[in-house]
Amino acid sequence: MENVFEKRHLTKKSENISEWYNDVVLQAGLADYAETKGCIIFRPYSYALWERIQATLDPWFKKDGVQNAYFPLLIPYHLLKKEKEHVEGFSPELAVVTKAGGEDLAEPLVVRPTSETIMYQTFAKWVQSYRDLPLKINQWCNIVRWEKRTHPFLRTTEFLWQEGHTAHATADEADAMAKKALGWYKKFYEEYAALAPYVGVKSASERFAGAEETYSIEVIVPDGKALQAATSHDLADHFSKVFEIEFLDETGRKVNPHQTSWGLSTRAIGGIILVHGDDAGLIMPPRLAPVQVVVLTVAGKDGLSAEVESYAKNIIDKLENVGLRAALDVNVKQSLGYRINEWELKGVPLRLEVGAREVKEEKVAFARRDTLAKGSFDKKDLVEEVGDLLDNVHAELYARSLKLKKDLTKDVATYADFKAALADQKYFLRAPWCEDAACEAKVKEETKATTRVLEFEEQGKTAKEKCFACGAPAKHRWLFAQSY
Amino acid sequence: MENVFEKRHLTKKSENISEWYNDVVLQAGLADYAETKGCIIFRPYSYALWERIQATLDPWFKKDGVQNAYFPLLIPYHLLKKEKEHVEGFSPELAVVTKAGGEDLAEPLVVRPTSETIMYQTFAKWVQSYRDLPLKINQWCNIVRWEKRTHPFLRTTEFLWQEGHTAHATADEADAMAKKALGWYKKFYEEYAALAPYVGVKSASERFAGAEETYSIEVIVPDGKALQAATSHDLADHFSKVFEIEFLDETGRKVNPHQTSWGLSTRAIGGIILVHGDDAGLIMPPRLAPVQVVVLTVAGKDGLSAEVESYAKNIIDKLENVGLRAALDVNVKQSLGYRINEWELKGVPLRLEVGAREVKEEKVAFARRDTLAKGSFDKKDLVEEVGDLLDNVHAELYARSLKLKKDLTKDVATYADFKAALADQKYFLRAPWCEDAACEAKVKEETKATTRVLEFEEQGKTAKEKCFACGAPAKHRWLFAQSY
Repeated sequence: MENVFEKRHLTKKSENISEWYNDVVLQAGLADYAETKGCIIFRPYSYALWERIQATLDPWFKKDGVQNAYFPLLIPYHLLKKEKEHVEGFSPELAVVTKAGGEDLAEPLVVRPTSETIMYQTFAKWVQSYRDLPLKINQWCNIVRWEKRTHPFLRTTEFLWQEGHTAHATADEADAMAKKALGWYKKFYEEYAALAPYVGVKSASERFAGAEETYSIEVIVPDGKALQAATSHDLADHFSKVFEIEFLDETGRKVNPHQTSWGLSTRAIGGIILVHGDDAGLIMPPRLAPVQVVVLTVAGKDGLSAEVESYAKNIIDKLENVGLRAALDVNVKQSLGYRINEWELKGVPLRLEVGAREVKEEKVAFARRDTLAKGSFDKKDLVEEVGDLLDNVHAELYARSLKLKKDLTKDVATYADFKAALADQKYFLRAPWCEDAACEAKVKEETKATTRVLEFEEQGKTAKEKCFACGAPAKHRWLFAQSY
Repeated sequence: MENVFEKRHLTKKSENISEWYNDVVLQAGLADYAETKGCIIFRPYSYALWERIQATLDPWFKKDGVQNAYFPLLIPYHLLKKEKEHVEGFSPELAVVTKAGGEDLAEPLVVRPTSETIMYQTFAKWVQSYRDLPLKINQWCNIVRWEKRTHPFLRTTEFLWQEGHTAHATADEADAMAKKALGWYKKFYEEYAALAPYVGVKSASERFAGAEETYSIEVIVPDGKALQAATSHDLADHFSKVFEIEFLDETGRKVNPHQTSWGLSTRAIGGIILVHGDDAGLIMPPRLAPVQVVVLTVAGKDGLSAEVESYAKNIIDKLENVGLRAALDVNVKQSLGYRINEWELKGVPLRLEVGAREVKEEKVAFARRDTLAKGSFDKKDLVEEVGDLLDNVHAELYARSLKLKKDLTKDVATYADFKAALADQKYFLRAPWCEDAACEAKVKEETKATTRVLEFEEQGKTAKEKCFACGAPAKHRWLFAQSY
């Protein structure tokens, strides 16, 4: 049996971020490894975070007219094969059901790696007239991709996500929709996850299999690596042609609609852990934190007084009444130090402490998880003070992420500088590039760095330099990085 | 292209409930058939109903300390095999992944037919001390069972559900938990779905594979057949023994905890459709209806006036402000009759109509979906009137379901009466039974009727008669019926 008074060893984030990550995922109760290869168990603490992510995004989708639906998990192989690039892109990662009900299946069924093919087969029935457009469907579901190397949350064989799928009358409308979805993800990361990502366009070779254009959110992690944190695809009419989705436009002409798909997954949890956490454990961004505020009772010499306990409970009630997620810790059998360590490990953004003194003075003591700063305020100001403190923690976390992004981005012009910047501490490298796929492949081969995005701000500018890698005329300045 | 002005043919429910069911599922936009055998596509209207079901149950679970988590979809076969009855029960229905990542797997992975085995493997890690109990976990997920005969919602190869899984220090605590979960389901069906089910204990042969006792909710459908609408299992220590879940009790003794599992699935949607619907289409129970109130604008000779439209929009605002789910229909290009038919087909419990007259008189016209009764009220009383009308629709639907239950239940004492009652219109048959499995199997073989439940009220009474089927001494009076 685990001795709860003995602190488990948490590797220092500053010393080895990769070991720290594995430690904190297990010790903070976010996940356990499963027997199924490459899979994790989402324990209640990480699943609660996923529920907060769902509760944030889902109303935005619905307000825009996106409707939730649910399509089958198992995709008949002939559907997957219809779009050539799509099946080629996903083939190496497929899990395949070949037996069911005690018999060999005549046709194998693929466990969905994404749902374009099974959805669009049906969209062809639903879309007949221009009046049926735009069609906007979203699905919250599980996905299986057979990955060679896996990390909890960041890359797992099975993960959870939402996938939005839309069909539109025109190419412009579809592209605007793909960008709108990207905008939701950007807002989510900045205003809720307190992360400062890069946003832009993927190179041709990094596009979603079958897409005309892929837009991406790239989070920069303290080791200088990139985490692709959400993508949105303008599919043009690539899928609608092969799935024979056709509508009669207002002039009576048969037209293939333009489509989009866009997704954000439980990988977001990995980004939140990696960027915000510190040597003491997790730091949950306040607007997503499953527990935003924890109230600890402090015992006196004679144990926990009824007065202190009811004072603490009253604080919880007041916080819950204004919709805050609060937890009460009256576990005075354990030392205050142990209890503080546990809540710091779990990354609860704001800790309140109340004991006999606070009751007497009608005060509340607090400690911020981000800065570890301590202080106190009058209990009568509780709701306002807690609201302000949580906003301040959010602002501080976002500022740190923004600083990290700036500190770990370098503009480089030569391949020598590019390589040097990936030697130890890694960087995001903004470099003039020729946009040639062979050049990109060579860079990847030699440095493990891939194109992350062409930022929208850079898309409008023409690079006048030569390509940093091959010396051919550059087209734009792209962001390169090693990635998770 | 579909001519929207031409009414599709909806089979009369009173003439052929099975054809009516298939018609209404497709025509009301609840589901589409998928290419994957035995699967359906949950279209937005049925998925929204599922979201309402989730939003009803999930807070009850959480309030009781049940925590949501997520375990892998794919279960290594050796885990499934551990509990002998369990694997025997589920083997005929398994879908099996044998290839992944382009290679044959050394061990096949089963697509979860239920999650006891993969969860309890991990519970063994989480449960060490009596202080770790009770452990209460719930999971909202998809399930695959390879079914020979399928019906939309009622029995599909893939379905959605929640599965609660708990572990307790004592047998009594576990049984109380299993009954508490059953109580949630009963409350859900009665107070939200407006259905009057039978509640009780399953016979040994109808128990969940591996359970000590299975409790069940059985809904009676207008054709006299039973729909098993939710189950809750007292698993005793059957699984905890084979998965080696052990805790140190307060005396330092190693003990296997007692466990429960309990689930409610998208099958509930099938019950709601089957019982409440009528010849005009669906009737949604008001507390779960995705759209509770629809407001139709009525055009005058010169089309839709801006006054009428803003009057209708103001009604929508007022309803949404008090948390009601309201939809606005200003589609005056189509005839009022057509629009009314469409909303009746979708079963929206309350329809409001406003035109020039209502605006002038500051009135609102209404029509109830259940009774089709019409009337009007003063707009100033809108919120109260709508609240009352929705409560009345709920009460009427529940009363109908209760009457159906009474009308379609017969007490029988002889096999001749039993068989006669299953000849055409079917019935739930309450009959004294010996509780012998061979006798039960013979009845099933000869009449297709199975034991549904032993009602809790009947459990306390000892039957003094002879078994209706075999003449041996009866133990209790059980409910038998044919089932979906």
